[in-house]
Amino acid sequence: MNNSAPPLKLGICGLGTVASGLIELVTRDVSRVAECASRPLAITRIASRTPRPSIMPDSAEFIEDPFALIGDTEVDVVVELIGGVEPARSLIERALELGKPVVTANKEVLARHGDALFSLARARGLPIGFEASVGGGIPIIKALRESLGGDAISRIVGIVNGTTNFILSRMNEDGASFEDALAEAKSLGYAEAVPDYDIEGLDAAHKIAILASLAWGIPFDVEGVRTQGIVGIRLDDLAFAERLGYFVRHLGLAQRVEACIETQVFPALVPRSTLLAHVRGVTNAVQVTSHAVGSSLFIGPGAGALPTANSVLSDVLDIANNRAVPWDAGRAQRQDRNAGTDADSQSSSAYYLRAQVDDKTGVLARVTELLAGQGVGIDALLQPEIEAAPSKAPAAGASIVMITHKTAESNMREAVACIQAMPEIHGQVSLIRVFDGD
Amino acid sequence: MNNSAPPLKLGICGLGTVASGLIELVTRDVSRVAECASRPLAITRIASRTPRPSIMPDSAEFIEDPFALIGDTEVDVVVELIGGVEPARSLIERALELGKPVVTANKEVLARHGDALFSLARARGLPIGFEASVGGGIPIIKALRESLGGDAISRIVGIVNGTTNFILSRMNEDGASFEDALAEAKSLGYAEAVPDYDIEGLDAAHKIAILASLAWGIPFDVEGVRTQGIVGIRLDDLAFAERLGYFVRHLGLAQRVEACIETQVFPALVPRSTLLAHVRGVTNAVQVTSHAVGSSLFIGPGAGALPTANSVLSDVLDIANNRAVPWDAGRAQRQDRNAGTDADSQSSSAYYLRAQVDDKTGVLARVTELLAGQGVGIDALLQPEIEAAPSKAPAAGASIVMITHKTAESNMREAVACIQAMPEIHGQVSLIRVFDGD
Repeated sequence: MNNSAPPLKLGICGLGTVASGLIELVTRDVSRVAECASRPLAITRIASRTPRPSIMPDSAEFIEDPFALIGDTEVDVVVELIGGVEPARSLIERALELGKPVVTANKEVLARHGDALFSLARARGLPIGFEASVGGGIPIIKALRESLGGDAISRIVGIVNGTTNFILSRMNEDGASFEDALAEAKSLGYAEAVPDYDIEGLDAAHKIAILASLAWGIPFDVEGVRTQGIVGIRLDDLAFAERLGYFVRHLGLAQRVEACIETQVFPALVPRSTLLAHVRGVTNAVQVTSHAVGSSLFIGPGAGALPTANSVLSDVLDIANNRAVPWDAGRAQRQDRNAGTDADSQSSSAYYLRAQVDDKTGVLARVTELLAGQGVGIDALLQPEIEAAPSKAPAAGASIVMITHKTAESNMREAVACIQAMPEIHGQVSLIRVFDGD
Repeated sequence: MNNSAPPLKLGICGLGTVASGLIELVTRDVSRVAECASRPLAITRIASRTPRPSIMPDSAEFIEDPFALIGDTEVDVVVELIGGVEPARSLIERALELGKPVVTANKEVLARHGDALFSLARARGLPIGFEASVGGGIPIIKALRESLGGDAISRIVGIVNGTTNFILSRMNEDGASFEDALAEAKSLGYAEAVPDYDIEGLDAAHKIAILASLAWGIPFDVEGVRTQGIVGIRLDDLAFAERLGYFVRHLGLAQRVEACIETQVFPALVPRSTLLAHVRGVTNAVQVTSHAVGSSLFIGPGAGALPTANSVLSDVLDIANNRAVPWDAGRAQRQDRNAGTDADSQSSSAYYLRAQVDDKTGVLARVTELLAGQGVGIDALLQPEIEAAPSKAPAAGASIVMITHKTAESNMREAVACIQAMPEIHGQVSLIRVFDGD
């Protein structure tokens, strides 16, 4: 609350959605922001390939070359909002080399080059703020590093991609097809023109790599995240899941399994009795399981100009107040307790299985037998067409829908391969994990 | 991560549940805690009326007089875990006067004497950590002060008392009576032998007073919180509410209504389409609505030794790392924008109304007429007995259950007074607010 202190001068690289949100937040109520920062904040330089004069604050000078911005003496803190790997990585490196703290919303550059960047930051004694890189407006980074900093985390699971959650919500609640829901997500600006990064699960994999590294001090390893997207989830799978008491969600998961940290992104049936199942639309949610606190759940907007800009601003405020947490707080200690990530899941789970079959006597018995051969038991069974018309003669096609008991993934895949090979099976057998929240 | 640095010496006043949890967290993994604190932590003194040798750490000396603990040169930081107003208030004052930072889990002393205590802390340039005072293991204080510090908050609503949420959950999910659910809460240690503090809403009122002061910089004013407990909520109200698409929750609410901040604690029908409605058992949840982020929801354990102790520990870690936030960060600025709390709600809401009536022709018409006379419209109507047996002759008693349109509280109360005076009405008319989450 020192308005006579010299301002903290921000240089912003990138002039897209999040930058426009940040400009609004910093300039809307200058005296209040100054009070929160204990000194005035000024956006002095903005670098972008394309100028957007309409949103430029009076205080800022436009520069085309972001490297010139970083070297400018009128920039104290570098805010990197370009995204992607290059030039973001080189810009962050350069800023740190010049002794300037960095705030970034860039999950990709951290998930891919975080080890080198944080090691450089550590060597220079500088912070890198990255609250906006995961969960948009949700303060999950601060929660993990500070509130749960002294706690022992065993699992992080969440909905960390708003686009896929929006698509699944529209399919589930309104019966939209995958294609229609995706088209709507595009028209609303939730999905990119080439949406693979979201719907194939890569965006979520980046975020899970960051959260895992943060929680357990393991190296960033986005390649090590077993990643499965939501392409192939059918509308009738969602309907059957709901009849069985589940909603389908696209989950990111990082958990300790014995000495390893397992990281995954996958669609899953989530019981309707859990809060996670009820997180709808573009909202994100991260659930943390830890020794002392037990279960914590953080829910909020996963994207958007102002929510993401608020996370960037909170990092700037921490820097302005000299309370930014160095990356390696509590990290080195943990590192040697972990063997690293493990690509082959050793954990077991229940599965949802749907097969389109010839409705002949003995087919269900054969499927059951193949499952039993792999030690897979059945927890719940639906035979929708037969239930709908029990007296009718069996039609050409019918569905078998079931939830299995918990089983090792390898056994399940073996059984499904055998079922798929049965002559009475039509099309692809659907196999979706059940995440029970325990 | 400087294990050769001198330890930060903690003196704990009180040796109850939270203190035992804190001892466990500080002593369980000493090197990890030292790393998070950037120096070792040592519990050097514990003051309590009753010694509990079995849980005393080796590093600590037992003292009967907590004031002696505060003056002890072997205490750097005072952790106040006694609860209640005195001697907690005097202990915190004394610690600050002696230049020692304070961490407390005590909502009562802050809600009643926070203005004086924080003013003293400000004058001395010392932090008071109070993460544990609201929401147990949920880092809501840090979220409000740091993550949402630069944002403009318009509303905070939540489930901030685990006991009443447990009771309502048991009634709703298992059909337990209020009395049985309360007895169970007592036997599980969730409710005190004299549970009035919880079930009358006072505990929640203290927490809402703290959150409101934090969010808008207004003085602490627990007396100004309109407080209504859950006594009088009947099992059939929960069942009717569910049929209408709602769960009943005991809410704490603080919101800006024009120039005023309105603070309230009340039972409410919450739509099942909201996440808040699905928060069950002793879990707490706080939903914050703010300009930039929109809606944020923080969910976790509202009480318990280890969750609460983790919040205390996170405050200690912030102090150890010199990143504790002073109370008045962003506060003075906000203060003059608020006229203060307003005891008479000007906001309108929908209401649930249930009346036991003589099942005579014209009774419903008369009730409707009395509501219309106050400008209250009906949104949904149930007549359970009539629906169950439409062809049967009306029995002696029947229920009218309805949800009204949004209306001013004064109009609603006026209408209910008239309905209650009708000769065909038996017993007390139930009136419960509907909280729509918008």
